[in-house]
Amino acid sequence: MKDLTVAVLGAGSWGTALSLVLNSKGHSVNLWMRRKEQYDEIMIKRENHKYLPNVYIPKEIKVFNDLIDAIKNSDIIVLAIPTQKVREIIKIIKSHVNSGQIIVNVAKGIEEKTQLTISQIVAEELPQQPYAILSGPSHAEEVVKDIPTTIVVASKERRIAEYIQEVFITSFFRVYTNPDVIGVELGGALKNVIAFGAGVADGLGFGDNARAALMTRGITEVARLGNAMGANMSTFAGLSGIGDLIVTCTSMHSRNRRAGILIGEGKNLKETLEEIGMVVEGITTTGVAYKLSKEYNIEMPITQEIYKVLYEDKDPKEAVTNLMTRSRKHEIEEIVDVSNIDW
Amino acid sequence: MKDLTVAVLGAGSWGTALSLVLNSKGHSVNLWMRRKEQYDEIMIKRENHKYLPNVYIPKEIKVFNDLIDAIKNSDIIVLAIPTQKVREIIKIIKSHVNSGQIIVNVAKGIEEKTQLTISQIVAEELPQQPYAILSGPSHAEEVVKDIPTTIVVASKERRIAEYIQEVFITSFFRVYTNPDVIGVELGGALKNVIAFGAGVADGLGFGDNARAALMTRGITEVARLGNAMGANMSTFAGLSGIGDLIVTCTSMHSRNRRAGILIGEGKNLKETLEEIGMVVEGITTTGVAYKLSKEYNIEMPITQEIYKVLYEDKDPKEAVTNLMTRSRKHEIEEIVDVSNIDW
Repeated sequence: MKDLTVAVLGAGSWGTALSLVLNSKGHSVNLWMRRKEQYDEIMIKRENHKYLPNVYIPKEIKVFNDLIDAIKNSDIIVLAIPTQKVREIIKIIKSHVNSGQIIVNVAKGIEEKTQLTISQIVAEELPQQPYAILSGPSHAEEVVKDIPTTIVVASKERRIAEYIQEVFITSFFRVYTNPDVIGVELGGALKNVIAFGAGVADGLGFGDNARAALMTRGITEVARLGNAMGANMSTFAGLSGIGDLIVTCTSMHSRNRRAGILIGEGKNLKETLEEIGMVVEGITTTGVAYKLSKEYNIEMPITQEIYKVLYEDKDPKEAVTNLMTRSRKHEIEEIVDVSNIDW
Repeated sequence: MKDLTVAVLGAGSWGTALSLVLNSKGHSVNLWMRRKEQYDEIMIKRENHKYLPNVYIPKEIKVFNDLIDAIKNSDIIVLAIPTQKVREIIKIIKSHVNSGQIIVNVAKGIEEKTQLTISQIVAEELPQQPYAILSGPSHAEEVVKDIPTTIVVASKERRIAEYIQEVFITSFFRVYTNPDVIGVELGGALKNVIAFGAGVADGLGFGDNARAALMTRGITEVARLGNAMGANMSTFAGLSGIGDLIVTCTSMHSRNRRAGILIGEGKNLKETLEEIGMVVEGITTTGVAYKLSKEYNIEMPITQEIYKVLYEDKDPKEAVTNLMTRSRKHEIEEIVDVSNIDW
């Protein structure tokens, strides 16, 4: 594969880490960030101190503060910006994008106002544009240390998925393809709701048994909603579903989990967001997921309880206790399809 | 439900914890243990120091050193003994068991010599005996502290599953039914192989990303084998499958995980077993799972690499690196059923 020019829009921890991966493969990277202070810092110190401290950003990575300059002549445009800002950025660049540039989204969320995933936003703003999503259990802090990591690329077009696989793959960063765009998108977004809930349980002092139960049932309710929205159920059993949920629920690198822990410990939402100091996608996603569960008429007990904690001042302890001790008797484990079993 | 007499055979941490759960519900518990020293300790100190330290064992729990006395007049016999000892114990009690006594197995393993699960052993030794298995993400150390826990009971007979659910359920210990006995058995046994492997990765200093990837692919290969052996695939996505794998891979309470960590850190098998000081089911199960994968012709890369580490002196680092960096290009994520997708 010839070396490409890749514009990475957004210099959070993930955009920065992916720039390093791409640079290590010999691609030219244009890393764009909105804030001038961050631009100056990276230009001068070659470090992104707030988002990825103590990691050297090689001089070959070109740093941009102008969006249009950053995407000019690039083969691929990576969207590494918070979900709620994606449409705004696309609106700015759309008249400058040419038909061959592939959009690769790496954000994990759903647009609050429209309840659309990012592939759906891109389809509205840039119809016909080739599109892929990269998602999976991949904390930036480990990727930059060359600790082996797996990830999934999904696209409706097989040739795009396989091309992006080739662009990103290294001996440490293993990329697998999947045709299920909506499944990969929803897994990445909705797992943040469950991870937040698992964090609340942790913050309240519940144990490993409870966390495992919430995660298991969490991915089940996420898969139910995803399936109703057109996703393949089995995607949620893969790297971008349960895999990403596991890494999010078991690592202190996860902002969503840490935010949940703080709420569980008794902090309010404002204090929590101040302490994290970065975008916590799961909080917005909880509101969206709650609405989607109503719209599609899907039972999502964890999402619904977490929604009440965040938006209706429900006591976190009461919410998690409800989830763990639901009193239906003779309950059959929900994941099991008993329709064919002679019981 | 009237109060019952339950014989719990085996006073490891889990047998002891379940005795406390049953006692708290008002059932009479006969707790049997083989070792006279342990019997004396519990009789005198009301503590099971080695297996469940600092937990008071109420005087209502009757302690037995004689197996036949322990099961006499009991309604239920709980098998809480290491898998490789189960047949020996059943052979001793079988002529004393009456047809109404329900066998409830709580061990997680497969018999090494025969490659049979415990339901299959019981079916050989005590055909027609009512049988259930109790399995799920349930560390004993948390159950005795009344930290909310979920668990699954499986039986071929619905009325048995629902009866055992009623016997064990408390407001903290939530029991769900599932008809898939072999699926629940295999999930509980085979997850120990994957948890051991995840422990090896942890011991080698791999990160959260790698652990999540190994767990995700691990449950996939376990489900593939399970399905070939007659289990329902969806059981592996439930509490007794991925749920139990999660708790085992993320808790220091797990002996299987801790044994893996020691191997990853460079200790040999003998040193590891000495340091753990208890039965590590996953080590035996790895050998059995390896043979089953050959017999059923199922690709189980994690099981196969861990087998080589344990039984063929393969370097753990090379094994885990192999697993994380398999070089097949254009690999489609294995969990996804792409057969119906126009790609």
